[in-house]
Amino acid sequence: MSDKNLQVVLASRPKGWVEESNFRFVEAEIPQPGEGEILLKTLYLSLDPYMRGRMDTSKSYASHVELGDVMVGGTISEVVTSNNPKFQPGDIVLSGAGWQQYVVSNGKGLRKIEPGLIPLTAYLGTAGMPGVTAWVGLFDIGAAKAGETVVVSAASGAVGSVVGQLAKMHGCRAVGIAGGQSKCDYVVNELGFDASIDYKAPNFYDNLKAATPDGVDVYFDNVGGEILDNVLRRMNPFGRIPLCGLISGYNATEPYALKNYRFLLTMRCKLQGFIVSEHMQLWPEALKVLVQGVAEGKLKYRETITEGLENAPTAFIGLLKGENFGKQLVKVL
Amino acid sequence: MSDKNLQVVLASRPKGWVEESNFRFVEAEIPQPGEGEILLKTLYLSLDPYMRGRMDTSKSYASHVELGDVMVGGTISEVVTSNNPKFQPGDIVLSGAGWQQYVVSNGKGLRKIEPGLIPLTAYLGTAGMPGVTAWVGLFDIGAAKAGETVVVSAASGAVGSVVGQLAKMHGCRAVGIAGGQSKCDYVVNELGFDASIDYKAPNFYDNLKAATPDGVDVYFDNVGGEILDNVLRRMNPFGRIPLCGLISGYNATEPYALKNYRFLLTMRCKLQGFIVSEHMQLWPEALKVLVQGVAEGKLKYRETITEGLENAPTAFIGLLKGENFGKQLVKVL
Repeated sequence: MSDKNLQVVLASRPKGWVEESNFRFVEAEIPQPGEGEILLKTLYLSLDPYMRGRMDTSKSYASHVELGDVMVGGTISEVVTSNNPKFQPGDIVLSGAGWQQYVVSNGKGLRKIEPGLIPLTAYLGTAGMPGVTAWVGLFDIGAAKAGETVVVSAASGAVGSVVGQLAKMHGCRAVGIAGGQSKCDYVVNELGFDASIDYKAPNFYDNLKAATPDGVDVYFDNVGGEILDNVLRRMNPFGRIPLCGLISGYNATEPYALKNYRFLLTMRCKLQGFIVSEHMQLWPEALKVLVQGVAEGKLKYRETITEGLENAPTAFIGLLKGENFGKQLVKVL
Repeated sequence: MSDKNLQVVLASRPKGWVEESNFRFVEAEIPQPGEGEILLKTLYLSLDPYMRGRMDTSKSYASHVELGDVMVGGTISEVVTSNNPKFQPGDIVLSGAGWQQYVVSNGKGLRKIEPGLIPLTAYLGTAGMPGVTAWVGLFDIGAAKAGETVVVSAASGAVGSVVGQLAKMHGCRAVGIAGGQSKCDYVVNELGFDASIDYKAPNFYDNLKAATPDGVDVYFDNVGGEILDNVLRRMNPFGRIPLCGLISGYNATEPYALKNYRFLLTMRCKLQGFIVSEHMQLWPEALKVLVQGVAEGKLKYRETITEGLENAPTAFIGLLKGENFGKQLVKVL
């Protein structure tokens, strides 16, 4: 065990694309737990698109990270020492330790993980926040019904991959949008989607139309922008668009302007933004389905695991550019 | 009684703005009612923005008017002759006779009006389809709650004027957007809105901001376009945007592109298109409130009544340009 705590702090706010120089590494002392506290060691850090928003100061659902502060993030952590009777050294917990190797916690907000049910890393992906996001958007906001057509963007990602598989389990037609042929093949051949469309290939709208012969009832949107604009033209009457992310615009200096929003009126559709942490009452039901689905092998997933916290900035920039495949994690310690 | 039935038919489809030449006048024979049928004489024709959509062939919620067919429209009609025991000559009914002086009906879909409660023309406005549209959008789609801020565009119009007054009756702050100082004065001084903003005046966003110090919880949108784009920036978390019309875009050859849709995500808002005829189960409850409000003088309205069916095209074009004040009607016979 090193006697330092490596941290990644926000050094400057990005203009457009995130750059390595927006981060700075700090070697702090390992903190000491006080009365009732525990020391946590970060095993895995989750990298997620929402973190891009925290780097800005613009009005959003979450407070931003201050300059000089440790970047936020969900982690799988291990209890190293404990002054809290509820935790024992060796316990594995879900935590929000952020981009650092060690953190002290009073135990509040931690969720103990029962080892052995499913791989630990799944609790940061399919059986964790991204999976619950898929569940809430698809069933609560999207109200998907058997027989309907569900389209999802960023389909091979941590959220999108679960959206399509849950849709299939629910009796829907699942169509994924992803970047590049290998991701498109993956969602159909490995995840069982009915069809996929490569947004980097020519004739996107024509391909979308061919893949959705009965139109679109639910469009689970992770990206916004031009893809959203195209899908709007395929919406069926009373369609629903759970708006989960706008990754296509996170790094744009000029916002994309939506041309086809009139279809929301003519098709009487609902477009609704949401954030999973504001639907806590749905988590237990969703997690039950997701953990069971992973345990039984019905919910498949892929991970990109980057070794070492020192590589987190590069991995995060790659995530925003779609260079990862499946859930992006960092193996920290 | 003339022995001819003047009709206005669709002569050509508009490109951009509607022109007089898109309509043609026809002098048909007055139709004769058969077994079980009645002959109706049109007293008042309602002119409404939705009719613009019926002149196009683009995908929409309603079928379009075929070239050569009589323009559609709601009417207050009087029974002239009846071969149907349910109707007597002199009965006044709500009908969809369209832009013509006479029509034969089998009685289905007609609603008899009890004379004397409120002025007949109110049944085409505040106590009719436009009023119910306001009610459904504000309370069902918009879920307005006491203490919230409600903003409505086209605020002096048939729908908008009811939205603001219902919002006030419900304990909300009501802010109207209208074109020109006289309409803005009207909604505050006569209809009792808390504030109004002239979209034709400079510094629209600054004025909107000043009029909505606590942000916007419900934006009842009748116009779309640049006004919607500005209001999006003022939305509060969990705000609702019932999308009722896009009159600003009805005559545009190039659609307006929406820059600020990202606020739908960051503020977790819902934007939902609707059409009042698909919420028939809500009509009785809404009409009860609306008829009573008019009868008691609590729901005020203004009308622009154009004399003679031959002037309907000009009046309709004026409506699309915002030249009318309040509900636009045509006195037909």
